[in-house]
Amino acid sequence: MGAVLFCSNLDDPEEWRPPMTRLMPDLELRVYPDFGKAEDIDVAMVWRPPAEGLGQFKSLKAILSLGAGVDQLDLTKLPPGVPVARLVDDVLTTAMAEYCLLAALRYHRRLDVYERNSRLKKWEYHIPRPASQRTVGVLGIGVLGGATAAKLKANGFKVCGWSRSPKSIAGVECFSGTDGIYKMAAKSEIVICLLPLTSETRGILDKKLFDAMPQGSYLVNVGRGGHLNEDDLLPALDSGRLGGATLDVFQKEPLPQEHRFWNHPQILITPHVASTGGAETAAPQVVENIRRARAGKPLLNQVDRTKGY
Amino acid sequence: MGAVLFCSNLDDPEEWRPPMTRLMPDLELRVYPDFGKAEDIDVAMVWRPPAEGLGQFKSLKAILSLGAGVDQLDLTKLPPGVPVARLVDDVLTTAMAEYCLLAALRYHRRLDVYERNSRLKKWEYHIPRPASQRTVGVLGIGVLGGATAAKLKANGFKVCGWSRSPKSIAGVECFSGTDGIYKMAAKSEIVICLLPLTSETRGILDKKLFDAMPQGSYLVNVGRGGHLNEDDLLPALDSGRLGGATLDVFQKEPLPQEHRFWNHPQILITPHVASTGGAETAAPQVVENIRRARAGKPLLNQVDRTKGY
Repeated sequence: MGAVLFCSNLDDPEEWRPPMTRLMPDLELRVYPDFGKAEDIDVAMVWRPPAEGLGQFKSLKAILSLGAGVDQLDLTKLPPGVPVARLVDDVLTTAMAEYCLLAALRYHRRLDVYERNSRLKKWEYHIPRPASQRTVGVLGIGVLGGATAAKLKANGFKVCGWSRSPKSIAGVECFSGTDGIYKMAAKSEIVICLLPLTSETRGILDKKLFDAMPQGSYLVNVGRGGHLNEDDLLPALDSGRLGGATLDVFQKEPLPQEHRFWNHPQILITPHVASTGGAETAAPQVVENIRRARAGKPLLNQVDRTKGY
Repeated sequence: MGAVLFCSNLDDPEEWRPPMTRLMPDLELRVYPDFGKAEDIDVAMVWRPPAEGLGQFKSLKAILSLGAGVDQLDLTKLPPGVPVARLVDDVLTTAMAEYCLLAALRYHRRLDVYERNSRLKKWEYHIPRPASQRTVGVLGIGVLGGATAAKLKANGFKVCGWSRSPKSIAGVECFSGTDGIYKMAAKSEIVICLLPLTSETRGILDKKLFDAMPQGSYLVNVGRGGHLNEDDLLPALDSGRLGGATLDVFQKEPLPQEHRFWNHPQILITPHVASTGGAETAAPQVVENIRRARAGKPLLNQVDRTKGY
């Protein structure tokens, strides 16, 4: 039987080994760069692949991403024909939906204003509106976006969603395609980006989108830093086109000290904490995918390498 | 038939007149001080009663509070024997539960820290914990507290509650009595006060309660300003006993400019916006109580004048 390669500069293999070994006692987990003979490796668990690529692993049957996305992998450089899977983790999904609800509620109830006013000694009343009169638009309605839409709905918001190809979710007004995104934006006082990062979604949060949103709307980006056109955001905030932005992901992380987003009164920065996967909860899915790869079966949450997600 | 007196320095009678008249076309609503003959008045809708009291209205059959509480009324000075009702309004209840969820999530996900860090250009990661590992304690589990507890639970938190007399709510660990409040506090990393203000609950948010809570816990007060011992709060925050406080109500409102709560880094001040009733949604209940008063029937949400709520 083969061995599993673990390669990540972000994840600790010793967090993964115990829960995986409980489920697969004969697991041989080898941590890059000490992987022994390259031909032993039949599955690779990776955040980013090693600099020299995965080409040396001739027996590779599956590449398992340690992230919910695969944009960090550069699919074009992975060995052709090897199936790739994303990580779908209930703990990660719940944490993401929770963060998005919090970000939406914070704008809905004007806590961004009251925080500033607490510092300014300013007692200024804004009449609360019912959530049922507020529409939140979710960009990307896959596993994470779908869970987020459901949580927003359960807490009283009107919800609409957008995806590249048409989808339908009960109680959510769904849009798709190139025109659909601007139709959705026009209805959404709060837009949340949960898209996968692909060549088609890079820079999608731009002036054109902000201009389509109602005056004074809010942006929440928990997708990837590459979704946001950073140069378009600041004029939109400064002109009042957007009322505020909550950003959890950035083109460079940690966000550089000199970056203009820091200490902008209308930007809330969180350090990529919207969600984190847990080895404990994700191990069953990874182990199942190792079994499937070795049995020649399709993987759980397998990525369409041509679409990029 | 009698006339209804409307007396409030906070509420606009012309918001109430249309929805009430739709339900009771022969309604005669008279706005203080232009109430005509005192003996015509058989029902009083009041925020605070007029300075001279309600004694001159000899035909009074009911006093209907325009607030969810009746602490602003001074029950001892109202004409004896006249039934008093609180306003229970679904819009108000939903808005209150929503505010409390937001305040709890904000601490749970450390947005209070990330807001400060956004100003300090500080990228500092705090690993998120699942809500299922966080207990929120709700003081007061009547209509508002019960709805808040349910909403917190629906969003994954562990919830416990406290009330003066024993109550039971599915899925909520309930405490009661003088000892019970400290037992509840010991379990609660976030304590939310939704109590009615009575002689027994005045100053209940004090050093003894803070000392019973886990180190670094959070306080949310949406009850009344009189629940909080203001002198006890600042040392608790400064020593780290409490990690933060979200305050929507104050002993004096608007909060005076010179008050020490302003611009305290760990205090979020909101200007009594946690919830507001809506005339539109509350009118049916008020009209029903006018009918009941005139028919000599018990009122909806009638207050026990000896208990004070």
